[in-house]
This record gives sequence, structure tokens and C-alpha cells, in this order.
Amino acid sequence: MRQRSVGEAALVERIEAHAAIGAIEGGGVCRIALTDADREGRDRLVAWMRQLDLDVSIDRIGNIFGVRRGKADLSPVMTGSHIDTVATGGRYDGNYGVMAGLEVVRWLNERGIVTHRPLVVAAFTNEEGVRFQPDMMGSLVHAGGLALQRALDTRGTDGARLGDELARIGYAGEMACGSIVPHAFVELHIEQGPVMEAEGVQIGAVENLQGISWQEFTITGQSNHAGTTPMRLRRDAGYCAAAISVFVRELALRYGGSQVATVGAMDLHPNLINVIPARATVSVDLRNTDEATLQRAERELAAFVEKLADAQSVRIDTRRLVRFEPVVFDERLVRVIERASQARGHATRRMTSGAGHDAQMMARVCPSAMVFVPSALGISHNPREHTAPADLLRGADVLLDVLLALAEEA
Amino acid sequence: MRQRSVGEAALVERIEAHAAIGAIEGGGVCRIALTDADREGRDRLVAWMRQLDLDVSIDRIGNIFGVRRGKADLSPVMTGSHIDTVATGGRYDGNYGVMAGLEVVRWLNERGIVTHRPLVVAAFTNEEGVRFQPDMMGSLVHAGGLALQRALDTRGTDGARLGDELARIGYAGEMACGSIVPHAFVELHIEQGPVMEAEGVQIGAVENLQGISWQEFTITGQSNHAGTTPMRLRRDAGYCAAAISVFVRELALRYGGSQVATVGAMDLHPNLINVIPARATVSVDLRNTDEATLQRAERELAAFVEKLADAQSVRIDTRRLVRFEPVVFDERLVRVIERASQARGHATRRMTSGAGHDAQMMARVCPSAMVFVPSALGISHNPREHTAPADLLRGADVLLDVLLALAEEA
Ligand SMILES: NC(=O)NCCC(=O)O
Ligand SMILES: NC(=O)NCCC(=O)O
Repeated sequence: MRQRSVGEAALVERIEAHAAIGAIEGGGVCRIALTDADREGRDRLVAWMRQLDLDVSIDRIGNIFGVRRGKADLSPVMTGSHIDTVATGGRYDGNYGVMAGLEVVRWLNERGIVTHRPLVVAAFTNEEGVRFQPDMMGSLVHAGGLALQRALDTRGTDGARLGDELARIGYAGEMACGSIVPHAFVELHIEQGPVMEAEGVQIGAVENLQGISWQEFTITGQSNHAGTTPMRLRRDAGYCAAAISVFVRELALRYGGSQVATVGAMDLHPNLINVIPARATVSVDLRNTDEATLQRAERELAAFVEKLADAQSVRIDTRRLVRFEPVVFDERLVRVIERASQARGHATRRMTSGAGHDAQMMARVCPSAMVFVPSALGISHNPREHTAPADLLRGADVLLDVLLALAEEA
Repeated sequence: MRQRSVGEAALVERIEAHAAIGAIEGGGVCRIALTDADREGRDRLVAWMRQLDLDVSIDRIGNIFGVRRGKADLSPVMTGSHIDTVATGGRYDGNYGVMAGLEVVRWLNERGIVTHRPLVVAAFTNEEGVRFQPDMMGSLVHAGGLALQRALDTRGTDGARLGDELARIGYAGEMACGSIVPHAFVELHIEQGPVMEAEGVQIGAVENLQGISWQEFTITGQSNHAGTTPMRLRRDAGYCAAAISVFVRELALRYGGSQVATVGAMDLHPNLINVIPARATVSVDLRNTDEATLQRAERELAAFVEKLADAQSVRIDTRRLVRFEPVVFDERLVRVIERASQARGHATRRMTSGAGHDAQMMARVCPSAMVFVPSALGISHNPREHTAPADLLRGADVLLDVLLALAEEA
């Protein structure tokens, strides 16, 4: 018997068509949450859902759900991810999981199959968190981890209020957040890291996800003349920002294991060649699979920052932007994914996710797990993000099998 | 006999009136070279020069000269400085020296005194160099150290061409650059550093000036996901920028003496919290009174940058923006200043200038030196830059004495 498959051409075509919205140089996508490009991406998704006869609902935080009725009026099996991107995003991060969900629906429609439980394809609002923090916001609100009103009142890096932007793009929906409580949630996603490719793994059954700590430090020193101010009299906010960047990298190398640390954003003021910076802001992203170790890293950083402020006579204010504990996914679900992949003969491995994902939030309300496919050279959040069509198809077909199995559960 | 004096009230009033053009919060001034604010500042200066019966000439790089005829047709004694500021500038840096020059002319006019040699008050174009590099550009072109055409073709940080901006604001003059070769050049300026205040010195006779090295490093790494990319696989341009900042500070502390090192400007791209920076630019300002030591610092930095690029698998391109050797001022002129100050009973000291000044360029074509007055708390390039009225007056009166003495020289 030929194995069932959503088909490579249809899957790739849909991904490409959607990646054209907000396309940027180098083959990437810039579709930051709640911008005009996000609206356009959402409009296309909703149109496709309707073409596929899905019942579309939008909730108050803008999450989009396409529901396919089942034989029984039971809690649905949900899949999906997000369609927002970072400013220099690729075409697969998030998008892939949503498009694959649509292809599963198309496959079922073409065969007239009605599953026992309903199926839902979801696209969650603002997963990336580059404009509005925290990230994974839509799924976090859905899971009850963040009050709707607080989410709507969030100010973006550009000063815009999230609720206003949501209304502006026409996605402030009517449905109460958290209305749909799934039987299970399975998110298909690219790995965004180098492990699978390096080890020749085709399908990852994601069993856990790192804790994420985002902080922003604002350093207030004193601007002064670069030529006339002796080194020992400086209150150099720019140097302090740089020292934090160097410190967190060294900390991560020292800790080893899953520990990563990144300073992705830094802004100096007045940012002039011959003026000692008066002010600097610097973001720190710390991650670890182990909560105790992540807390230790945070404590070490706090101690370093306190000593630095003292030694350099600057003031350093700390703002917590995001804090998520590590998540362990549902063991039964991970096993279902693992077996489905192995049954197709794929090189399969249990994985840890270094990135945050909507499944991490959904895990608070229902059994959840993820399917990973490889990322070429481990590159992501970069226009050159790439996954080979054969890998994309393997992931979508495993998703098809897993959803079919879960949707038949009593 | 009462000592001659330009008078505190008139001097302070003129400085304040001029500082109102481009005024910013906190009492500072933003009058970046060849902007509309610079035009307004120039228009006011030229109007005042005409009110004081000075012959105004503008040269092709936009330097403004107000000439007061002498009894003899000899080379003039020149004073002056600049009226452009950094983005977060104070009210005295540059402005003070030009305004004090006008007050000396007013004092002479009111007494109907005609000096033996002509007197010239100059305001040089783009001394600060924040928008167009190099700094001290107008005086450098005047002194023949930079070809006019190259200066006019300079692109600013905003992409604008200097020559176009000069024409736009109406200051692309007719006079050939370098036409006026002075008998001597004396620049009155605030110290912009903390030494005089700390040591109770009222007047500084500036005998030398640090060498200045400005470089910009552009680092090209690879953007990638902050959560999924293992530390050892990163090509983090942001970390490299930070490492350069920390390195140059440590180098300056290690060298001691007059060595200073500053990273004033740093830009990361894409500058997002969860994306490893793909690109960074970082400026480095190194200064030393000793040319050999400054060269050693540059060599050490180059070696560090090369090793860093190698270790972090990034590309680092180096662009030289400015390079001036240390300058030793005219010993006879320094002594004239020193004696004039001592004759008034001021606490006087010989000084080194940490900042670059137009006098440094003028020293290439005529005997030059500078007079310094204290800066409160050593703060400069900051809206809170301040010099007490009594200190401003002491400096202007010493300038008066020095100009009168030099203008009577055969
Ligand atoms: N998957 C993904 O890129 N999520 C964004 C949040 C993060 O992990 O930084
Ligand atoms: N005096 C002064 O601030 N000059 C600007 C050039 C520099 O020294 O950085």
C-alpha cells in the first residue's frame, strides 16, 4: 500500500505563497506582529481556511482558529503555530506549522474523511515578541497565563498599544480567550538549530523546552568629552553595556550544557564617536532546560550588574520582559509522535527545544508536544533560514498520522 | 589704574544669545555642522560681525572671517574657534572663543583703537566632526591638510554630501581656502576636562595637544536564533563589538598616562532581543600626547581585532576616519599667554589639550597656541557643560591682552 501523504508540491506551494507576504531581500519575510503585513498574512490565511470549509473564529487577542467538525461533539485535536516573524525572519518559522495544518485538512477534505473528534488549525498572535513582549503572547493569553487586558495594554517598542493595533488591522475578535480547550495540541515546527542536521535526524519528537529569561538593563552614566575625560573619572554607560554583553557570553561558556546567553539589542545615547555615552540599553536573553541553573545564571548576572554599577558610578535599572520556566511535554504524546515517525522509517530522535513555542503555553491547558524537522546549517531568524522540501514533507506527513490517531481517540 | 576688561555682562549676554540658536533641553545646544541650526548660528554671527564693522569673508569650505583693519598692511593676528556643536552639546564649546573675539573687537571699537596689525575673528566649519569626518575640517582645509574637493565630497552619517549642504545653507563662499595666513593664531576655549577645576587653576596656557585616532570597525557575522544556537557555533557580531569596547578601555587603563580610549557609537543589526546580531559597527577614539605610544595602541587594537575575527568566525573591516598626530604649540606664544595671565594675577598653568581644536590645524601654517578656562566638573559635550561667568571673563581679558600685544608686533 502506498503511504498516505499530503504531497510535496502542494505543501511547498502553499508555504511559498504565504511567504510572499512581507517578503524581504534574501528570501526572507518581515511580518512583525500587528503590522499591515501581519494583517495581509492573516487575511490570506482566513481566506484559505474558508476555502477549506473550516469554521473561522477570532478571539479577543487575535488568535485565529479554523475548526473542522468531527463526528462526535468532543474537545478537538488542535495543531498550528504562528504566522508573525522577526524583522529578519525566514519563510518557515511558524508559517510551516500552520500551512502544514491546512494541508492535512485539504487531504481529509479530498478523501471525504470525517474524524471522530473535531480538528482545529490555529495561528496564535505575536509569537515572536520582537515588538510587543512577552513572546508567545497569543497562546499565553489563551492558556490563561496573562490577563487579556494586560496583553491589550502592552506598549510596543514603537510606543503603539497592542489593543489599538489589533483593532486597526481588524483582528480584535469576539470569541472569549481560552474558549477552545483541546484534547491535545501538536505543533509542527522547524528546529531552528543545528542538531538534527549535524546528527542526520529527520524527525524530532520534542520532549522539553528551555526556560526563557529576558531582561533589559538601562544604564545611566554621564556623557562627556572622549578626549579630555581621564579614564578613571568616566561614568561610561556604553562600556557598561559592552561589559554585560561580554559577561553573559562568558557565563554561558562557563556553565556549558544547554545554557545560552545572548545580547541581541543594544542602544547607546547620544551614540557619537567622541562623546562618552550617557545612556545605554541592553537586552539579555538567558535560556536553560534546568530551572535551578537558569535561576543561578540570573543571580550571577544580577550580582555582576550591581558590582558594575558600583565600580563605574552608573545607575543600572533592570526590567524583566519575559520569564518562562522550562516545560516538559506530555510523555504519551511524545511517544505517539516518536512511533508515528519510526513507523514511516524516519531517523527519529527525542529533542529539546531551544526556542520558545506556542506549544509551551498550550501545555498549561492540555497534553502538548512538538514535531521538529531540520533547519539547514541551523540558521533561523535570518532570511537564509531553509528546510529542504523532502524534510518539510516528512514533518507534515508525520503530523497527518499523529492528528488522525489523536482524532480517533475516545 | 583700573585693568582693561571686555566686561562680564556683555560677554555672557552674547554667549547666551548665540546659545539660544539650536537650544535643547537641559541648557544645551544642538547645532550640528551644516544643518539649518548651523545656518542660523552663522547668520547671527555674520550680522554681529557687520555691526562691529568687520569685513566678512567666507571661503569655499564655509569658514567665516571677520577682518578688522590695522594701521599696517601686515599679516593679521587671528583668534576664533567654531560654532558647530555635537548633538548633545553645551553652550561654550567653540562658541565661547568666537564670542570673546567679538567682545575684544567691541572693546577696541568703543575706544577707537586701531592696532598695528589687522585682527581677524574666525569661525571654522565643522570642528566637531560628528556628521562629517574628519573633525576640525574647516581649519584643516584652511591649513592645506585636506584638499578642498575631497572635503566637499565628504558624505555625512546621514548620506548627505558636504558640498551640497554647504551650498544649501548659503555658506559655500568665494574666497580661496588658506588665503589668510596669520602672523599668529590664538584660540580661547573651555578646558572640557576636570584638571583646572580640580587644581584651582584659572587660566591654562596650552602647550600641546593629543594625537587623535578615530576608527570604525564593521563586523559581519551571522544572525541566528538566540535560543537554539549553541554558544560555540555562533558568529555573533554584537559580542565582537562589545569585546572591542571592553578591550580598548582595558588598554587605556593599562597604558595610563595621557592615554584615553572611547567607544562612543555602536549599532547592532537587526538589534532584536532574540536574534544573534548579524552586523555591528563600532567606533573607537584613541588619544595620546605621544605619537609612538598612540601607534602602539593602534597596533595592539589591530592585533586584537584580527584575533577576534579569527576566533569568532566573523569578518571585521576597519575604516580610518581621522588620524592627527600630537601637536606642540609655539613656545613663544605659550609664554606670551602665560605671562599675560600671570600679570593679571591669575592662577596659571601650562596644559595639554585632550580635545582636538582648530588651533591644532592652524599650527601647521602659523605660530599658534590656546588659552583654556575651567569647565565645571570637567563636563563637556553635554548640555550641562558650564563655566562660571568670572572664569569666562578672565579668559576673554587674557585674550584681549594677548591679541593687543601680538597686534603691535612689527
Ligand atoms: N520559535 C521562535 O522563534 N520563537 C520566538 C521566541 C524565542 O524563542 O525567542
Ligand atoms: N573641542 C572639541 O570638542 N573638538 C572636537 C573634536 C574632538 O576632540 O573630539
